[in-house]
Amino acid sequence: MTRFASFVDRLNSFLLEHSRSKLNLYNIAVEDLIKGGGKRLRPILMNLAGHFGDYRVEKMLPIAAGVELLHMATLVHDDIIDRAKLRRGRVTIQQKYGSNIAVFVGDYLLSKSYILFSQDLSRHCLNKLNRVVRLICEGEIQQYQSRYNNTITFRDYLRRIRKKTALLFGLSTYTGAYESGLRGKLLYNLYNVGLELGMAFQIQDDLLDFIGEQGIIGKGVHRDILDGIYTLPVILLFNDPNYSMRVREIFAHTLVREEQLARINSLIEEGEFIKKSQKIGYRFLDRAINHLDSLPANRYKEDLRYIINWQLKRTK
Amino acid sequence: MTRFASFVDRLNSFLLEHSRSKLNLYNIAVEDLIKGGGKRLRPILMNLAGHFGDYRVEKMLPIAAGVELLHMATLVHDDIIDRAKLRRGRVTIQQKYGSNIAVFVGDYLLSKSYILFSQDLSRHCLNKLNRVVRLICEGEIQQYQSRYNNTITFRDYLRRIRKKTALLFGLSTYTGAYESGLRGKLLYNLYNVGLELGMAFQIQDDLLDFIGEQGIIGKGVHRDILDGIYTLPVILLFNDPNYSMRVREIFAHTLVREEQLARINSLIEEGEFIKKSQKIGYRFLDRAINHLDSLPANRYKEDLRYIINWQLKRTK
Repeated sequence: MTRFASFVDRLNSFLLEHSRSKLNLYNIAVEDLIKGGGKRLRPILMNLAGHFGDYRVEKMLPIAAGVELLHMATLVHDDIIDRAKLRRGRVTIQQKYGSNIAVFVGDYLLSKSYILFSQDLSRHCLNKLNRVVRLICEGEIQQYQSRYNNTITFRDYLRRIRKKTALLFGLSTYTGAYESGLRGKLLYNLYNVGLELGMAFQIQDDLLDFIGEQGIIGKGVHRDILDGIYTLPVILLFNDPNYSMRVREIFAHTLVREEQLARINSLIEEGEFIKKSQKIGYRFLDRAINHLDSLPANRYKEDLRYIINWQLKRTK
Repeated sequence: MTRFASFVDRLNSFLLEHSRSKLNLYNIAVEDLIKGGGKRLRPILMNLAGHFGDYRVEKMLPIAAGVELLHMATLVHDDIIDRAKLRRGRVTIQQKYGSNIAVFVGDYLLSKSYILFSQDLSRHCLNKLNRVVRLICEGEIQQYQSRYNNTITFRDYLRRIRKKTALLFGLSTYTGAYESGLRGKLLYNLYNVGLELGMAFQIQDDLLDFIGEQGIIGKGVHRDILDGIYTLPVILLFNDPNYSMRVREIFAHTLVREEQLARINSLIEEGEFIKKSQKIGYRFLDRAINHLDSLPANRYKEDLRYIINWQLKRTK
């Protein structure tokens, strides 16, 4: 999103400057994460929300950096769980240095983000943040515990992606707005723009595991389903009365996993579950747009709309 | 330490009550950690330091619980690195549920501790806390990176245990004192009582790996040295000009690790490096006592002295 390049450049410099450590390994790992790209969506959202109020860049920059470091920390720990080899097209910390190092690199990033937050964030937002971090952990554990569970429902899935992703998006716009003095309806609408966008974002992220190309999304396609992590298309398939019998049959036979995968995929195609999932994603984007429409007209509103539209068609 | 049983009982109830989650696995894991014992040294120290100032239990309890949850979080992540099977005589989280779960149980405990801290802690102490968490991570990584490194010096070791352990002890007394309104020399002395005690504590902890019995200390004896983590007696041996040649010989031969271990142990015995290490531990206890002596006379001072004396002879 070159539209936000100047903010992202500033953010990246800030991140590099404020995550220096005496430990060289950290510096290499953190530089790798920062230079490895990433869309910086959460800090961008926070920054835009801030512009609806009494915006001050010197206040916004540290907490925007904080939310990105927090996000990076969860990615690093996430990759340990997933035994992921690639992230954003780059070799993960745990693949490169081992999961032992990755545990503490994650902790370190988390503590760095807390340093930024506790210096600059109001007590109110700090409490909200802590709650979100707790729920992210819960979401991750729930996801891990429900691997290979084919009785997972649509509602379970929504609850999981809310915890795993959407709440941090919501927190980003909320915090940007709150710290710029916004309260009441404006704060509420900005929060919900973030939250609903976050839901759509995670649905699309999960869909890219089916429709993306490894080269574009930067991780192995179908990794999720092979790891027993069932996302929206699979869950819709499992819960569709026209298909549930046939799905059960597939799992009843002790097929090699690749063969199960192939059969599941053909059912997903037959029932158009990718399309159905995309529609659900659009529903959340619609909700985001509804909240957006309540906001006063200015260029930041158009920036937010740009991000929503980008989300509609993103392929990575 | 039955002397502090009534505070510890209250603390345990508070911990159990405030670490409830919707996730049953967490509740089981956390209950396990809480009921699994542990000395609660850090909260006890914080609580005692608080009594030198304007003490209020309703203020002290949440932050004392916070410091114990933080400590537990580091233990859970620590055990992943060490692949430890036992901790405090109980099966570790990572052994019981796998290291994947342990990553997020640790994160969860960390976020729980931050929830308590950010509600009740002054900005000043919150910043100090964040710094300590960062240094703990650095210490853990440094320790991991310097495994099997036999050029590690005495000073390296002191730096490592300071980060790994002593700073959190120091933070405990500091925070208890600061949050009870203490400043200046009294705050300084209480901080140093904690810090120096923490240094002695870690030295003794490391020594128990040599002289303890598995049944007493609750983890496999000699785990450290087999993992390539060299602690004080080994480091003193490596750096002793009378022994360094013989040590290098042992490592030059490709012996089975158990045989290397046996030879190292016999050199440690010959050179009385356990005794020499204990002496160094006593030096830190002496420093703690010097700071203690500057404190005003009251029963809490005697409680602190009791802990220092207990440390002198502890076997678990």
